[in-house]
Amino acid sequence: MSNKILTFGEVMMRISPSNNKTLQQSKEVEFFFGGTEMNVAASLSTFGCDVKHITNVSNDFVGDSAISYMKSLGINISQVNKNEHPLGLYFLEVGSAVRPSRIAYNRLNGSFANINPNDIDWNAALQDCEYFHWTGITPGISENAYLALKQGLEIAKEKGINITTDPAYRSNLWNYGKKGQEVLKELVGLSTIFIGGVNEINEILGTQFSSDKDGFIEASKTLLNTTPSIQKVFDKVRIGKDASNQLTKGRAWVDNQYIETTEIEVNQVVDRIGTGDAFAAGLIYGLMHFDYQKALDFSNAACALKHTILGDVNLASVADVLEVVNGNLGGRIKR
Amino acid sequence: MSNKILTFGEVMMRISPSNNKTLQQSKEVEFFFGGTEMNVAASLSTFGCDVKHITNVSNDFVGDSAISYMKSLGINISQVNKNEHPLGLYFLEVGSAVRPSRIAYNRLNGSFANINPNDIDWNAALQDCEYFHWTGITPGISENAYLALKQGLEIAKEKGINITTDPAYRSNLWNYGKKGQEVLKELVGLSTIFIGGVNEINEILGTQFSSDKDGFIEASKTLLNTTPSIQKVFDKVRIGKDASNQLTKGRAWVDNQYIETTEIEVNQVVDRIGTGDAFAAGLIYGLMHFDYQKALDFSNAACALKHTILGDVNLASVADVLEVVNGNLGGRIKR
Amino acid sequence: MSNKILTFGEVMMRISPSNNKTLQQSKEVEFFFGGTEMNVAASLSTFGCDVKHITNVSNDFVGDSAISYMKSLGINISQVNKNEHPLGLYFLEVGSAVRPSRIAYNRLNGSFANINPNDIDWNAALQDCEYFHWTGITPGISENAYLALKQGLEIAKEKGINITTDPAYRSNLWNYGKKGQEVLKELVGLSTIFIGGVNEINEILGTQFSSDKDGFIEASKTLLNTTPSIQKVFDKVRIGKDASNQLTKGRAWVDNQYIETTEIEVNQVVDRIGTGDAFAAGLIYGLMHFDYQKALDFSNAACALKHTILGDVNLASVADVLEVVNGNLGGRIKR
Amino acid sequence: MSNKILTFGEVMMRISPSNNKTLQQSKEVEFFFGGTEMNVAASLSTFGCDVKHITNVSNDFVGDSAISYMKSLGINISQVNKNEHPLGLYFLEVGSAVRPSRIAYNRLNGSFANINPNDIDWNAALQDCEYFHWTGITPGISENAYLALKQGLEIAKEKGINITTDPAYRSNLWNYGKKGQEVLKELVGLSTIFIGGVNEINEILGTQFSSDKDGFIEASKTLLNTTPSIQKVFDKVRIGKDASNQLTKGRAWVDNQYIETTEIEVNQVVDRIGTGDAFAAGLIYGLMHFDYQKALDFSNAACALKHTILGDVNLASVADVLEVVNGNLGGRIKR
Amino acid sequence: MSNKILTFGEVMMRISPSNNKTLQQSKEVEFFFGGTEMNVAASLSTFGCDVKHITNVSNDFVGDSAISYMKSLGINISQVNKNEHPLGLYFLEVGSAVRPSRIAYNRLNGSFANINPNDIDWNAALQDCEYFHWTGITPGISENAYLALKQGLEIAKEKGINITTDPAYRSNLWNYGKKGQEVLKELVGLSTIFIGGVNEINEILGTQFSSDKDGFIEASKTLLNTTPSIQKVFDKVRIGKDASNQLTKGRAWVDNQYIETTEIEVNQVVDRIGTGDAFAAGLIYGLMHFDYQKALDFSNAACALKHTILGDVNLASVADVLEVVNGNLGGRIKR
Amino acid sequence: MSNKILTFGEVMMRISPSNNKTLQQSKEVEFFFGGTEMNVAASLSTFGCDVKHITNVSNDFVGDSAISYMKSLGINISQVNKNEHPLGLYFLEVGSAVRPSRIAYNRLNGSFANINPNDIDWNAALQDCEYFHWTGITPGISENAYLALKQGLEIAKEKGINITTDPAYRSNLWNYGKKGQEVLKELVGLSTIFIGGVNEINEILGTQFSSDKDGFIEASKTLLNTTPSIQKVFDKVRIGKDASNQLTKGRAWVDNQYIETTEIEVNQVVDRIGTGDAFAAGLIYGLMHFDYQKALDFSNAACALKHTILGDVNLASVADVLEVVNGNLGGRIKR
Repeated sequence: MSNKILTFGEVMMRISPSNNKTLQQSKEVEFFFGGTEMNVAASLSTFGCDVKHITNVSNDFVGDSAISYMKSLGINISQVNKNEHPLGLYFLEVGSAVRPSRIAYNRLNGSFANINPNDIDWNAALQDCEYFHWTGITPGISENAYLALKQGLEIAKEKGINITTDPAYRSNLWNYGKKGQEVLKELVGLSTIFIGGVNEINEILGTQFSSDKDGFIEASKTLLNTTPSIQKVFDKVRIGKDASNQLTKGRAWVDNQYIETTEIEVNQVVDRIGTGDAFAAGLIYGLMHFDYQKALDFSNAACALKHTILGDVNLASVADVLEVVNGNLGGRIKR
Repeated sequence: MSNKILTFGEVMMRISPSNNKTLQQSKEVEFFFGGTEMNVAASLSTFGCDVKHITNVSNDFVGDSAISYMKSLGINISQVNKNEHPLGLYFLEVGSAVRPSRIAYNRLNGSFANINPNDIDWNAALQDCEYFHWTGITPGISENAYLALKQGLEIAKEKGINITTDPAYRSNLWNYGKKGQEVLKELVGLSTIFIGGVNEINEILGTQFSSDKDGFIEASKTLLNTTPSIQKVFDKVRIGKDASNQLTKGRAWVDNQYIETTEIEVNQVVDRIGTGDAFAAGLIYGLMHFDYQKALDFSNAACALKHTILGDVNLASVADVLEVVNGNLGGRIKR
Repeated sequence: MSNKILTFGEVMMRISPSNNKTLQQSKEVEFFFGGTEMNVAASLSTFGCDVKHITNVSNDFVGDSAISYMKSLGINISQVNKNEHPLGLYFLEVGSAVRPSRIAYNRLNGSFANINPNDIDWNAALQDCEYFHWTGITPGISENAYLALKQGLEIAKEKGINITTDPAYRSNLWNYGKKGQEVLKELVGLSTIFIGGVNEINEILGTQFSSDKDGFIEASKTLLNTTPSIQKVFDKVRIGKDASNQLTKGRAWVDNQYIETTEIEVNQVVDRIGTGDAFAAGLIYGLMHFDYQKALDFSNAACALKHTILGDVNLASVADVLEVVNGNLGGRIKR
Repeated sequence: MSNKILTFGEVMMRISPSNNKTLQQSKEVEFFFGGTEMNVAASLSTFGCDVKHITNVSNDFVGDSAISYMKSLGINISQVNKNEHPLGLYFLEVGSAVRPSRIAYNRLNGSFANINPNDIDWNAALQDCEYFHWTGITPGISENAYLALKQGLEIAKEKGINITTDPAYRSNLWNYGKKGQEVLKELVGLSTIFIGGVNEINEILGTQFSSDKDGFIEASKTLLNTTPSIQKVFDKVRIGKDASNQLTKGRAWVDNQYIETTEIEVNQVVDRIGTGDAFAAGLIYGLMHFDYQKALDFSNAACALKHTILGDVNLASVADVLEVVNGNLGGRIKR
Repeated sequence: MSNKILTFGEVMMRISPSNNKTLQQSKEVEFFFGGTEMNVAASLSTFGCDVKHITNVSNDFVGDSAISYMKSLGINISQVNKNEHPLGLYFLEVGSAVRPSRIAYNRLNGSFANINPNDIDWNAALQDCEYFHWTGITPGISENAYLALKQGLEIAKEKGINITTDPAYRSNLWNYGKKGQEVLKELVGLSTIFIGGVNEINEILGTQFSSDKDGFIEASKTLLNTTPSIQKVFDKVRIGKDASNQLTKGRAWVDNQYIETTEIEVNQVVDRIGTGDAFAAGLIYGLMHFDYQKALDFSNAACALKHTILGDVNLASVADVLEVVNGNLGGRIKR
Repeated sequence: MSNKILTFGEVMMRISPSNNKTLQQSKEVEFFFGGTEMNVAASLSTFGCDVKHITNVSNDFVGDSAISYMKSLGINISQVNKNEHPLGLYFLEVGSAVRPSRIAYNRLNGSFANINPNDIDWNAALQDCEYFHWTGITPGISENAYLALKQGLEIAKEKGINITTDPAYRSNLWNYGKKGQEVLKELVGLSTIFIGGVNEINEILGTQFSSDKDGFIEASKTLLNTTPSIQKVFDKVRIGKDASNQLTKGRAWVDNQYIETTEIEVNQVVDRIGTGDAFAAGLIYGLMHFDYQKALDFSNAACALKHTILGDVNLASVADVLEVVNGNLGGRIKR
């Protein structure tokens, strides 16, 4: 096995006041780079995998900083292109307790939205590749992004590569003319591993399954029946008490069986962004190295840990995640 | 209705180390502007109301910064005067868990304490005004502040304006010769809406009601009997588990009836200063737009939200508050 | 005289590492709001004038922060609109000595670029207005911005309002189809006061005057001959030794006479952005209050002072500028 | 009574990203000075005691800063020496919830490790001294540190001074050739008050007592039997729910009796470093001023408060600690 | 010789935006402690002298921080008292080039202004004292401050102690009823070493000497003639090109002779506050250790170095100053 | 040509207060990674070259951060090893004007000093390599470092690789027993290109040439005569007016000819560390792409630019450097 993974998607700058301040209260902001698929790449690279990320960045010092950031994490950026459009970005005001976090996007005319599908050599990118990961964000950004992704998926499918998808539907995207549900259904039909739950299935299939265990099982069965390429369903369940306290849990429908993890409680949440991506990365790593139950435990532990790490990217190592899997939740100082 | 509100009181600079540091541990501090009545003005202005704040600031760049801050929030500052005394200020060390926050004041010889009552054109200020809000802080600062406030209240009463009061007694004030309880009793006698509870009533009337529901009802009845101008009593109940965890709840005695809100739990408190002012502003807005129950719910939700916002001022919008009123406490990210 | 001034143009967020760092070296950045015409408005408002700024901002917390910033400076924002496009912004890396500063823009699909010309009530905006200021940036952003500006200029011309213009041509704009030189020539033809020098005249007229005194006089005469609406030419001359040391000087052609100021040396430059806008604001204020020579001296002193102030906006007061006009350049501490 | 206390041990610089960031995510870090015995000295000095700390620092501006820090806390530094080795330091990444904090040390070839035992005038240092405090860290650093400490203990024992010890065994030390357990047993044999619990006793005696109440009593009895110099055992029990939430409790075996404190819950932990040192300092102060029960209550309250204070050192005053002893845990603002 | 020095005067908190920002532009500020006489004490303590500073601070955590700061510098604070008034403070906006720095004070009703002259045991303080230093700031703050200082001076004179004075007249003080010139003349009449130049002499004597060399000599002679206690005159001459570039030079009239130093140029000034105090401290140290010429050179070098150090206090060591005295101005890195 | 470059040396963390503060004045510090040879690698990688750096870092999160930093710059880190010793580091206090910067080192027992020479596969590292760069720092750190370097040089020499050396002698190193001058002479004898001037030659040869042009020529000739492997001498001349103002110039002796560059003035210096390394990197790049004169101009411009960039590493691109070579020193904003 090559242990090689490919991801494709936008890299954005995230700009955020620190210490729960609002933008209006601030003169300084922290910034990070993130993007749902790049977050997965970054976590897998931190786990020690060989990961390439394909994207388009701006041809200026902002784009250069994004590339430098990916390099610092060890992501292969040899297929990152540049164009004259600005790097996508978003502003984040971090909430607390009963105050939700708020995001303002600036991405729909950015360097990734204006990606040229013909600039990507998918055959080279997918050579010796074991996993290809995509999310529902990408095809929602622009028609070009959709077309580029679709090309990649078709080639990946042809090559028999494992295709993982987190097909989240975001209503603040999809304003270039295509219907999100239809596109997602089409692209999920090219994929093999579904990382999502009842909400995502209901959105794609137009069904109305309930979110409890039985609903999840029925939804999963229906998805597998209607979408032959999909073989497995892995779901992250996050129960938010408030913006500062979260419970995470994983469940899955694999080999005609339901499995689930224990719940992990995360108080004093540091960052909620990218927790789903941490789950996805944990799952891909888990599927490459463990059985299904342990892979799911690993995903859930990765997801829990990401709540304690600032920024979009899960910087936990395999050893860090395994400690949580093994129940060391007490947070004793490691000297 | 004019929707116009007037507030009167000191604007102070608050100086505070970040991240729970003590002053001795710090070389840098954050600063904010605040002041109990200005906080009410700021919240109401953020709610979209037309609010004027009357105060006195220093005739230097510190006073100019205070004015600029009020302008940034949309408060009408056309009746703010300046004098040669320094702007009042306070230092705040923010506690956590079992460590209380500590405040050191520098205000008793400041620009507001030295306000000249004759400089205020109360008739102009109160023209078309619907609500006038004052607190027990102002008359405790100096005789001049007391005299200025009293003039304003007498003119407001004459004009039949709604006069809300949060008549908190602070023992670290009142060192210019007057007795706090007597002055507060006098000024509450010019007001129409009492924002306070059993403690405040006991202080003013010299009674000893208990703080439970029955005590509150009895205290309210007694206040209404002995103080004919007062028509309604609204009480914010904050149950502090520790400096980081709070429960908030509102209760009221209106139209000979007791009403109350559900409790809202706020973990991971960001800032406790100004939560009472957020309640008062929520109440004034609520009374202008909703029935008593919803007004009280709105006040309590505003108070809860303020715990999650840094600084003295509640920056939540009406929509933000209504979400909490409607029970959306989970803090999901708003994209 | 009404003392009322109108400005029209984009408000951008400026994002910049502090202490000469590059973006790649940074995790935190400072931000400011600026925009060439708003900078003029802000300076004039700080001088005590009654200034309205017309613009479009994003309908999110970023746009709200921009509005709050303008309010904090006392700018009338009653005709600011919002739309669903993101606020324009730019990244600035501040150079030093032989290292130039660098800017990366993200503005061409922003809220201002997408302004709807029909949303602006120019008649209301220009009522009782004494001066209307525009720059060559605005028509370069988008066709909508050009059309909106042209409408405003035509109405302003009709009303006989003084129209000042800083018609700088920026090659990184003008990619919506129109030719910059042609548009600028057309719009300068609607204006009355030209704030620019030989470069700007050469660009608009296609001439090749030299930049020395004689060249400036000839260029000015030619401009007045070919553009009847223009009555006066005011030029800021900045001689940059390097990114940290600058000389500023003003010169003008008014009433068929050449006037100029002494040179002011600015070492240890704090910020070069907005120095031309400070000159323009100084000039408008000067023309309203002083004779031509003193107006030019005032403009040049304002321009010099802006080099010492962080951000895009000149925060110097009239008294601050007059001190420099009066030759107090020694920077003694003012207690 | 002289009220005079002596401590001996390394002073290190602690370097730490703020806001739970990892080092890799940071460009700026906060720093503090700490060291287990100096932390005890600092707390006792803040309590108003007369404390001298003996150590060795680097002969450069880093060592000077460490000395200046100790002086700022009122610690007597007249017996601090300097040498040409660098000051010891450690990097701390602060965890949260399920993420543990991590420490990377740089101390084993530092100025303290290279201390010259002959440079210390123990007789002068211990004159009129009431208490001498040491921990198991010091003899683990280097042979020189061990030898210096042993000399001090022997002289202190001779003088009949109370010798408190927190004999924690740290496996990341002890790489200079000696066996930690043997050395600790030897040095505990020179001490009179044991600040530690079942773990520490098991380590030193090679026993396997359980950590419950009975186990603690048995372990204490065994310790007193086998180590005649030890008269009392005081144990801090910290039950960590996770890195952000802790319970603290004290228990002791004194005068053949078991005593214990109530539990104090600390949510939203600010800093876990130095909480044991805060307990030790509280105990020494308590033994000098209170009966055993109150001394233990005082220790536990000091330990709880330290969790809310940034840095290695407990900056709480005696009054602050007594408030917690008296059950004021609600964290009301102190104005 | 005892090498012991006494200083007396206010300790203030200085609050200042960093990086030349204005307060209005800031949300965070740096703070320092300073005060003209304490600055002298701090520099002398850093030089290794035994210095006691007498002052009054607030009885709160702000005053405690001021005391901790003095302790960190090794100043003897055993005669510092506390009262219930707030610590004096000032806000500083740091200018650059042609923009002057600005200060806003908050001191006239602070803890030092309210000092009780009877609280000071001058006999104890002046025992074995070699030098007592005062400035013209102290008697300008309040009548109490004046009375306390006068008592100290009278006792110091009686004891034959060297009394140095920097009798600067500040017009923004002296509003408690006394005339500055008269008081300064009286107190200079109790002193022995005059640290000031033509301006100070003209102010005190009502003369009009010119500031050139001849004027300085004539003024000095006249001062010595009319004020028998004064034996020597030392003058710091600072020629400010602008806020960022300064020339410093010392001159003196001692033993009926004129001496002067070379000029030192300081570009890229870091901080101008406290440069006169650095000169005074350098002079006192110089007079204790060197001949007049070297003492003056040392003072001037200390003054020049202070321009490169942030805050009110000169942190340069004797070795640092001597390097500048010896002409090493090139600023090579010291490894 | 392979365009491949190898460097070998320590990577240190640099810890520094910002804004010219001293450590004693600070609570926060910035940090960077640097090291003279890695700085050369970083600059060459930024120029687009293929660079590998060999070093040893600590096996903890500090070492991981150093690796991540090198990766972010595109340096090949595949031959970086880890051991259990802490990463070397240094503290830097940045001076200004007449105040020199100060450095305190903590490196002599670090991970690089403890490098195991046998862990390095020099044959692999030097395969297809065009240039190998070393400095006099490395053999001064420890015997192991010296031995490792010597092995590398011998293999490189055998392979006929260009070996550049900046053989600076630092007196604060060399305390492991070897004599610096002897070792440097030995290793220079294995090198081909000498980057240094009269000082370095005098140190190595024990000569006493003067530093003027003639002295440089004579020294170069003597070096070439006595050290046959050396073919060229390139010298960076930096004339420091003070810590804030520098002149840079390059001169060389190549092909029996003297060449030199024009002087570049750098006012308002941002950072002086690593300017020599920027020169060396510029030279290696220049020798690979330009003739000698242009290579020297390029080196000198790179050196000048580095003075304007924070940190140890020159982040300027080839285009940035060429602009300075072409005389664009005015620092105009690049939009």
